[in-house]
This record gives sequence, structure tokens and C-alpha cells, in this order.
Amino acid sequence: MEGFYCGIDIGGTSAKMCLYSNKQDEIIHEWDVPTLKSADEMIIIDRIIASLYDMCASQGIKPESILGIGIGIPGPVTEDGVVLKCANLGWDIVPLKRIMCEKTGIDNVEVANDANVAALGEAWGGSAKDYGSIVMVTLGTGVGGGLIVDGKIHTGNKGAAGEIGHITVEPDEEAVCGCGCHGCLEQYASATGVVRLAKKEFPDKYSSDGVSAKDIFDDAKAGDESAFKIVRTFSKYLGVALSNVAAVISPDAFVIGGGVAKAGTIITEGVREYYRNYSLYALKDTPIELAQLGNRAGIYGAVKMVID
Amino acid sequence: MEGFYCGIDIGGTSAKMCLYSNKQDEIIHEWDVPTLKSADEMIIIDRIIASLYDMCASQGIKPESILGIGIGIPGPVTEDGVVLKCANLGWDIVPLKRIMCEKTGIDNVEVANDANVAALGEAWGGSAKDYGSIVMVTLGTGVGGGLIVDGKIHTGNKGAAGEIGHITVEPDEEAVCGCGCHGCLEQYASATGVVRLAKKEFPDKYSSDGVSAKDIFDDAKAGDESAFKIVRTFSKYLGVALSNVAAVISPDAFVIGGGVAKAGTIITEGVREYYRNYSLYALKDTPIELAQLGNRAGIYGAVKMVID
Repeated sequence: MEGFYCGIDIGGTSAKMCLYSNKQDEIIHEWDVPTLKSADEMIIIDRIIASLYDMCASQGIKPESILGIGIGIPGPVTEDGVVLKCANLGWDIVPLKRIMCEKTGIDNVEVANDANVAALGEAWGGSAKDYGSIVMVTLGTGVGGGLIVDGKIHTGNKGAAGEIGHITVEPDEEAVCGCGCHGCLEQYASATGVVRLAKKEFPDKYSSDGVSAKDIFDDAKAGDESAFKIVRTFSKYLGVALSNVAAVISPDAFVIGGGVAKAGTIITEGVREYYRNYSLYALKDTPIELAQLGNRAGIYGAVKMVID
Repeated sequence: MEGFYCGIDIGGTSAKMCLYSNKQDEIIHEWDVPTLKSADEMIIIDRIIASLYDMCASQGIKPESILGIGIGIPGPVTEDGVVLKCANLGWDIVPLKRIMCEKTGIDNVEVANDANVAALGEAWGGSAKDYGSIVMVTLGTGVGGGLIVDGKIHTGNKGAAGEIGHITVEPDEEAVCGCGCHGCLEQYASATGVVRLAKKEFPDKYSSDGVSAKDIFDDAKAGDESAFKIVRTFSKYLGVALSNVAAVISPDAFVIGGGVAKAGTIITEGVREYYRNYSLYALKDTPIELAQLGNRAGIYGAVKMVID
């Protein structure tokens, strides 16, 4: 009998949703639902559930053939599926798994942090789909990460595993990271970090408030030496951080995603070079690939959490 | 019925062996067998098996009541229990698990790298016995490591996980590590590394060929300022490395063992301070403890591998 799984990736402005058919072995529908910031989480939850039932009705799918619901959310999540504050959504502590189970009558509900869910998505249907253990690094405003160990999300003690952005790559850095420490990867490899480096190294060239990481990567691709120097620094620190990750858990592959990674192969080429320089012999050839699923990684991973 | 498990920790000069009783739930005998460096691995293997049967005979234990054999070995080991060269023993590639199964008729044989096995031992019967996921760092001539994730050894791709000694803590270091890279933890936190730091920073004071890491820690404990400065540098880099490990996998606890750790609480106190300074808020309180089992950790872990 054909059964369906619903994947949901909840973000600050919209929730991306999908339906996966176990018979067709693929995602058969994708759609978005607007979210909004509200301390009353039930507004969003009710809207998402109503949207799922509407989609089922329009596609002739019986609600009882929904076999599971997977949810990624931008905040810390306990193993029991309790969201521990979510600043983007304005939520305090929300037992999301229990609420979803009660409201839908479906027992198979999983909730996890969105960076981890995206990593699972890339490991299932994206650029790391041949690998069981991967680390995904997301280079956005900050630097996030997700760990998949033997096909499962690894959250670690207090859910704090995969905090790749807060690996210390320069112990003697004087500038302070958002986390209060010094020399975190995020200070060099996030969009904000790349701009910070550029303004510090080349204040005359990159003084404008509007300068973006994309500008700097574009300049480097166009042959600009100053910009290229910034990209080298970015690559060095990201390469060092990934070599450290490898020395700890030796994943089968790395995946790099997020807005900064849209710069493309200039990212992977530079990082691979430094990664090799700083890695043990046995680790030098670990693949480092660009993410393939973009903002769809979350719904892939959300489905994968509940079909297993 | 009472059954027994044999734990074996093979080293360059001797193999430490034990028998564990499932009825008494404890290790009931411990003994040593001399090993020797030889390209013919069968000499050592036969000697170990003969010694096991001798012990069984002397204790009135029937060989058929041996339910499993766990072995730790100082070299890389595949998941199938094949040892891939072991310099300390003079071995090339040895399918140790298969040989032991064939020679003893026992199916339940597990072989793993000795650093990983020691970590499992500390997680089972040592200073980390309340924790499911731990990282053990062994500070000896080099710096080794072992990862236990959810109660199991995690070896990673190519068995290269837990190479804590080769985490890069100082990307701009000019001195070269034994692995060929620059700025590895091992260059600062191994016995050799501590002496290297002392000779570099205080060449007049620590010029002698016979100076040891123990001398430096003893001097620091006695109030010597130069030695204390070296210990601070050691603590800083070990703290940075552990904070990086935590950002990747967030273990429940760290255990520090090996010869250098015999210096005692001067190690853990300094490392905890720097670890906190370089760690995310959620990770700051991860326990960092000294190993308790010393050179018995290997036989504990070897037994634990086969009773699960």
C-alpha cells in the first residue's frame, strides 16, 4: 500500500514542506507555508498541519496514509523533540514532537535542529549520497554544521555537536567572536567574517557598509589581488578547521553549503589545498564537495529522519 | 553457567592479559606475557594462546567456557580485525581476528587499536564510567586518542578517527611535526613536545639531553617560573584542542592519560581553564578527568569489546 511521509523545514519567514511517496520512492510534492514570529507557537503549528491536510485533500491522499512527519527547526532540540527556544520564530520551550503527535494522531514524528537535518538531506539525496558519515558546514551569516555518523544525526551532549563555526583556528586572535571566545572559524569563514577580514586588511578598498562576501569572491575571480588574498585566508582557516574535524571523527566526506558557498569551486579548490596541507596522510583525500540541494536539503533530511 | 572472557593488550615488550568472569562480573586474573619484535607474528600469537590455556588449566577453567577474546594492538586495525602494519611488533599485514578464531575455535574475537581499546576501558571501568560518549587523550612520546560514541569505539573512515595529536592548534607554526604538518597538538602536548618547548624558550636552563617532561612539571610544581610558563603553553594548546573536539562531537567527558598525565592535577587544572576560555557556553562544563586505570585500561577495554 502506498504510504506518505511529510518533511517540514521551518524557517523564520516560511516553512518548506513536502510529501514523499514510499511507493514512488521520491518527493512528489513541495510547497511553502508562510510563518511568522510569535510567542504563540500554536499559530504556526496549526497553520502547518492545516496546510498538510489541504495538500492531501487536493491530491486525493487520505490523511491516515501519512506514516510519519519529520521536522527541522532553527534552534536547539532535545532528543525528545522539545525545542529549547527558537529566536527566529519567537518561541520559548516548545514540546513540538508531542504536540504534533497529539494534533495529528501520528506516532512517527521526529524533530531536530535544521543544520543537522540539512546534513542528513545531503547525505541522503545530495552531494554526499554515497557516504554514511559526513560533516556538512553551512557558511552563512554565521558558520553552522551538522554531523551524520553511520547514517544518523549525531547531536552529542547538550545537542552541541557540529558547532564547526566555533572550532578555534587562531588561538591568539584578539577580535572577539559572537560566542565570546577568540579565533573561532566563524570569524574568518562566515559571510560576516570574510567582510571583516577585507575591511581589516584592505580598509581603503573595502570601506563601504554595503560590501558583501559575494563582492569579495567576485573580485577574486576577476583577478583582484587584494580580494584573492582574503580568499586565501578564508580557505586556510576553513581548511584547518576541516582537517581538525577529520582528525577527530574521520568522516567519509565533507559538504559545504550556505550562501557563501554559492561562490562555487573557488571555495572547494582553496579549501582542499589547505585541508591537505594540514591533514594526516590517511585523511588527505577525504572528499570536500559543494552542497547540491540548496534550501531543499532540509525537507530531504526531514523525510529521511522518519522513513528510517 | 559461569563463562569467561579474555582481554589482551599487546605491547612492544609484553602482552597484558586478563580473564573476566561473567558470573562474578569482574576481572579475576591478570598476568603478563613477554612479546618480542618479529616479522613472524605466529611466534607471539602462539605464545599468547598457550599462556591463556596454561592460565585456564592452573585455575580449573575449561577452555570451552571462554566465550570471547578481545585484543588491543598498537597499530591501525580494520573493521574486520586485520592489523595493517605494527611497527612496535615488527608486523606487516596480519589478519589477527581470523587467526585467533581459527586457532582457538572461538568465534567471538574482536581486535582494535590500543588507544581506542584503552578509551573503552576507561569508559567502562575507569574515570569515565558514568558516561556513554567520551574522548580519551593519551599524552606519551606522542599524543594519541580514542573515541567512544554511545558506548562503542568510533574508528571513522580508514580507522583515522581519534587522531587528537594531529589537531592543528597553531596554523603558523614553523617547526615540523612527525606527520609532516605544522602546528599539531603533539608538538606542544606530548612528552617530546613539552621538552621541545622548554629547550626553545629557555635554552640555557633546559639544554641537557636528559631533560624530561617530568622534570619540567616537577620544576613548575616547585614554583619555577620558566617551567610554569612552559606548562601554561602546554595547557593552552591542549585546552584549545579539547575545545575543538567538543565543538565537533560534544562528548560527555574527556579523559587524559599517558605518562605525561602522571604529573597529576597540574595538568587538569590548567587544561580546564583554557578549555573553558575557548569553548562555547554549552560546552564549558564538560568534565576533564585524569585516567584512573593506567596501563590496565587496555585489558578492561579488550574485555568490554567482547562482552557486549
